[in-house]
Amino acid sequence: MIIQSMNIEDLARQEIRGQPVYEAGKPISHVARAYGLDPKAVIKLASNENALGPSPKALAAVRAVLDELNLYPDAGCYDLSEKVALYWGIGQSQLIFGNGSNDIIDLLACTFLERGDEVVMGKYAFIVYKLVAHLAGAKAVGVEMTKDFSHDLDAMKDAITPRTKIVFFTHPNNPTGGVNKTEDILAFARALPEHVILCFDEAYAEYMDNPPDLRPLIAEGRPILCCRTFSKIYGLAGLRVGYGYGPQTLVQLVQRARQPFNVNALAQAAACAALDDVAFVEKARAMNAQGLVQLGRELESLGLQTVPSDANFLLFKVGDNAFDLAQYLLKNGVIVRTMKPYGLDPYLRVTVGTPEQNTRFLELLKSGLNAGGAR
Amino acid sequence: MIIQSMNIEDLARQEIRGQPVYEAGKPISHVARAYGLDPKAVIKLASNENALGPSPKALAAVRAVLDELNLYPDAGCYDLSEKVALYWGIGQSQLIFGNGSNDIIDLLACTFLERGDEVVMGKYAFIVYKLVAHLAGAKAVGVEMTKDFSHDLDAMKDAITPRTKIVFFTHPNNPTGGVNKTEDILAFARALPEHVILCFDEAYAEYMDNPPDLRPLIAEGRPILCCRTFSKIYGLAGLRVGYGYGPQTLVQLVQRARQPFNVNALAQAAACAALDDVAFVEKARAMNAQGLVQLGRELESLGLQTVPSDANFLLFKVGDNAFDLAQYLLKNGVIVRTMKPYGLDPYLRVTVGTPEQNTRFLELLKSGLNAGGAR
Repeated sequence: MIIQSMNIEDLARQEIRGQPVYEAGKPISHVARAYGLDPKAVIKLASNENALGPSPKALAAVRAVLDELNLYPDAGCYDLSEKVALYWGIGQSQLIFGNGSNDIIDLLACTFLERGDEVVMGKYAFIVYKLVAHLAGAKAVGVEMTKDFSHDLDAMKDAITPRTKIVFFTHPNNPTGGVNKTEDILAFARALPEHVILCFDEAYAEYMDNPPDLRPLIAEGRPILCCRTFSKIYGLAGLRVGYGYGPQTLVQLVQRARQPFNVNALAQAAACAALDDVAFVEKARAMNAQGLVQLGRELESLGLQTVPSDANFLLFKVGDNAFDLAQYLLKNGVIVRTMKPYGLDPYLRVTVGTPEQNTRFLELLKSGLNAGGAR
Repeated sequence: MIIQSMNIEDLARQEIRGQPVYEAGKPISHVARAYGLDPKAVIKLASNENALGPSPKALAAVRAVLDELNLYPDAGCYDLSEKVALYWGIGQSQLIFGNGSNDIIDLLACTFLERGDEVVMGKYAFIVYKLVAHLAGAKAVGVEMTKDFSHDLDAMKDAITPRTKIVFFTHPNNPTGGVNKTEDILAFARALPEHVILCFDEAYAEYMDNPPDLRPLIAEGRPILCCRTFSKIYGLAGLRVGYGYGPQTLVQLVQRARQPFNVNALAQAAACAALDDVAFVEKARAMNAQGLVQLGRELESLGLQTVPSDANFLLFKVGDNAFDLAQYLLKNGVIVRTMKPYGLDPYLRVTVGTPEQNTRFLELLKSGLNAGGAR
């Protein structure tokens, strides 16, 4: 017997029915399988991971607690929050940890967004903001960005209405890499109306020399939640751990939406150790700075316009054949990111790899362009 | 300057403001710290973990992928879903994986629950159902259970109204351990109105000899989501991985609420391997059966009434001093679970441990009772 009359779709919330699904960077194993390649020969420059691998100190910490995997993680992330609180000079109650900083963004939306609310963000900002807004029934307002794809703070201010509940601001921006002046950011944050929460997403801040510091504004009790992740410079994307910090009142509200065991035990141990791995972070930062120069110079010499980036990736303009060129790279074992989901179809985004990975990408790109794959 | 006029609480959804926080079992490190104990001497029988440790096959699989922790997990859990689909003889599109099965419960609520909906569950069922219902603005209807704290299926049927969207049914029930006859469960599921989704939570099903199989009803397209976890018999609570299976239409709706990287890379590798670790599961099941007998016999001989359990824990009645007795155990390094959050104040729940752990618990319990800690 097949039940015919029932329509499960009708039972879902209206937002779910229209909800788009996030397109993730393809895993190496999938690409290898699809194109008959040796997985070891495939390089992934699509998800802004750290090409140096995971922090060695984090790995050692993970190995030390493997035998206790039968036990639930600490629901309160006590040791980790103690460590991070000390790192920033803030209180433990000002911290919330998540299954990646994506989780924090999700929880923030769940805490505050009502059907009919508005959420302001850069037009080419991390797509997850749009997804969480839509899921909550809020309207995602994408604000035109500057010519260099940085946030246009005046335009963002103008987009705020009495219905605006959250402003998302990624800095440096993903997928474009753009940044703003610290004084402009602080002025923007100070000028926000009281009913607007600022989510300042600092996933790539460790790649900057002097990232803006919003702690003085947080200390004033302003509704700001800064997000950090261990997925980027610390090399722990596979483990899933990130956090938010802000005024205690705000953070404790978001805590109420959190699942108790959202951060796994290995992630907690690894993140604690990674924070101490200063040498690794310095090495990654130096490699990234060199890689940005290498990639920028070579791409420009190929006549491909690049977007200024302070992060660990570079957006560059290919033209109408961007998708075909990405496919060519993919078939030959180099995964980069197409930008159609962001409405930046002529562009591709490449993560800074090791010097060898960058060279391989550039050589393959050249042969793709010569084969008429682009422009 | 401190911003005075602003009240961040007023910005939160009304459900958040009244949302209670889940009380997790205390981690060993906290107990050791609080009472000046050697962490190695503390045993946790509070969270229904597998006292045998993690599945050895899972551990080996984790070790093999540690060096790739810098890479994001597979957003689609491809290998794991292939494996689990084969295990159950269902399609991969009928599966959704979560950061523990708690995540699945959360996503199910997010997919279907609207403000004003009703959710039916056993009065003494896993407290997370109430939490997710409340968070969505739905009314949690706790139905009186049988004398043995099993689900009263007739009473549950009677509690269903036109506003009921989800029925949660844990089997065996946590925290009581009670089960129902398979024929009664199937009849109950078949008789549910079309507008009601059944969430059949099988977190402890592996401890049963013949757990009910709802796949024939799922094949009929009924709105059923069965939940399984790797946190219990597979010994992977620290890693966070569980899943739901149901009709494709239902599962694909729930997928839209999921964060792309909700299951970490190690959890995916570990779960794949754990499914093959038949010997480990058999060993855990046998140890549990013996432990239930040992604990049941000894508790009854102390005059403490036990509740029949088909899971890896035992609920027993202490009386007015249950909380004090639990504190006595805690101070002496044995963590059990108090039942106040469930409104079962005179009861305690103890997880089945190794024979040695059970003995230590029982001896400590006796000395606690003799010291006037209870009854």
